[in-house]
Amino acid sequence: MIEAEGKRIGVGYYDMIEGAGAHEVIIETPEHDVSLPDLPPVHIKWVLIAYRERLKDLYKDPRFRYGLVFKNHGQRAGASLAHPHSQLIATPIVPRNVSMKLDAAKRHYENKERCLICDLIQQEINTGSRVIAQENGFVVIAPYASRFPFEVFIAPIEHNHSYGDTSDDDLERFSHLLKDILLRLKKVLNDPPYNFVLNTSPNTEAKPRLSDQWATLKYDYHWHMDIIPRVVRIAGFEWGSGFYINPSVPEEAAKYLREIS
Amino acid sequence: MIEAEGKRIGVGYYDMIEGAGAHEVIIETPEHDVSLPDLPPVHIKWVLIAYRERLKDLYKDPRFRYGLVFKNHGQRAGASLAHPHSQLIATPIVPRNVSMKLDAAKRHYENKERCLICDLIQQEINTGSRVIAQENGFVVIAPYASRFPFEVFIAPIEHNHSYGDTSDDDLERFSHLLKDILLRLKKVLNDPPYNFVLNTSPNTEAKPRLSDQWATLKYDYHWHMDIIPRVVRIAGFEWGSGFYINPSVPEEAAKYLREIS
Repeated sequence: MIEAEGKRIGVGYYDMIEGAGAHEVIIETPEHDVSLPDLPPVHIKWVLIAYRERLKDLYKDPRFRYGLVFKNHGQRAGASLAHPHSQLIATPIVPRNVSMKLDAAKRHYENKERCLICDLIQQEINTGSRVIAQENGFVVIAPYASRFPFEVFIAPIEHNHSYGDTSDDDLERFSHLLKDILLRLKKVLNDPPYNFVLNTSPNTEAKPRLSDQWATLKYDYHWHMDIIPRVVRIAGFEWGSGFYINPSVPEEAAKYLREIS
Repeated sequence: MIEAEGKRIGVGYYDMIEGAGAHEVIIETPEHDVSLPDLPPVHIKWVLIAYRERLKDLYKDPRFRYGLVFKNHGQRAGASLAHPHSQLIATPIVPRNVSMKLDAAKRHYENKERCLICDLIQQEINTGSRVIAQENGFVVIAPYASRFPFEVFIAPIEHNHSYGDTSDDDLERFSHLLKDILLRLKKVLNDPPYNFVLNTSPNTEAKPRLSDQWATLKYDYHWHMDIIPRVVRIAGFEWGSGFYINPSVPEEAAKYLREIS
């Protein structure tokens, strides 16, 4: 479907997408042989601030509807450069996986008038067995329906839909938890290849404007980070189904990650 | 959403799914050291008939809504056993990726009153540049929007929504093309790891019945096989977006695969 200003104006084989985008590489340190969690928290904070500043700057361009910040560590996780780096790709549409999350958050809000991720966080804190760490206003969780062994979810406990709206102080507190969980994963899984992905609000100032399908995203969405250690391989079942066979139990992953010193 | 007989009866955090499934391993040959395309076509035909017979048998169980046949070849493609084998996993729900395809086929049918994949095949045959082979009633294509380098799509040219409805003769003709394309991929990409996935109709006799969302699937769906050589790695951008960065051009992949002898 070709959509403009929320109105369908035609039907074709392919969505018509504006041919605009941006791809930036964030060099995390001048040193070639260190990895992100080995850097001091204040240094990690500056990397996290760089993500925010670049996102905010790119969102000034109304052609960009989403900015995806991610990191590939290790060859099996798709890293093509050894030097420590993260990436930011801005796209002229909201990516499919992001729009599915936004849709789910919106449905929950319609039913409950609460943020889905706030509710998930509270449920996880009450349950406790999948919480890896909770401090300084952030929580680190092995998700209930983890797709991958030792998958990790990090989010601020207080509601905030947009990483672009974080303060330096928020990111300082985030840097300590991120360093800590990456070091724990490194120790438990012997420096595994991993990806992390920052999930944040789309660019609400994009033009043509986002259709009103996500009009409540400020209330129903909640920025978070997913960390995916690449210890199992994706195979035919996953490609064909979109479902993930996970041979491990998140409660046990949380226990290992909590207990390692 | 909890759905029964197409009616929403409640809203919860998690879909309620019947805890039933089946997982079968299809041993392709008693010989440990051969690979599927090295077998004679008549032998491959019997493997393809085994897929069909097992699907038909599992679809007699009304708890199973879908049967996913797939093959993982090579360690990087997730194969955990070296002996040549394929797998069949029956699930009590229609997997997400399958339901997205069924939805797309249905939307096209609503607009055009024609099968999406019949239309795609005709468009590809007319265009020609992405066709790798066309013979015996089957077509082998490098898809227009290939997610992966050297991704391959095979389907019968004549409309048929269900692999379970194929004849022995259909599968004999399919076996020749499957052997041929797997040998070509082996030669061009130096025996790459790969996955293949058979896409077929869900079990229309499942109970509770499939909701009427796919009432026209007999007319709008079309069985096909996707072959995914695993020559690039999935990384953070793909996990976060659901989009795939493909550094190669399908027209060139088709040309290489056509020209190799």
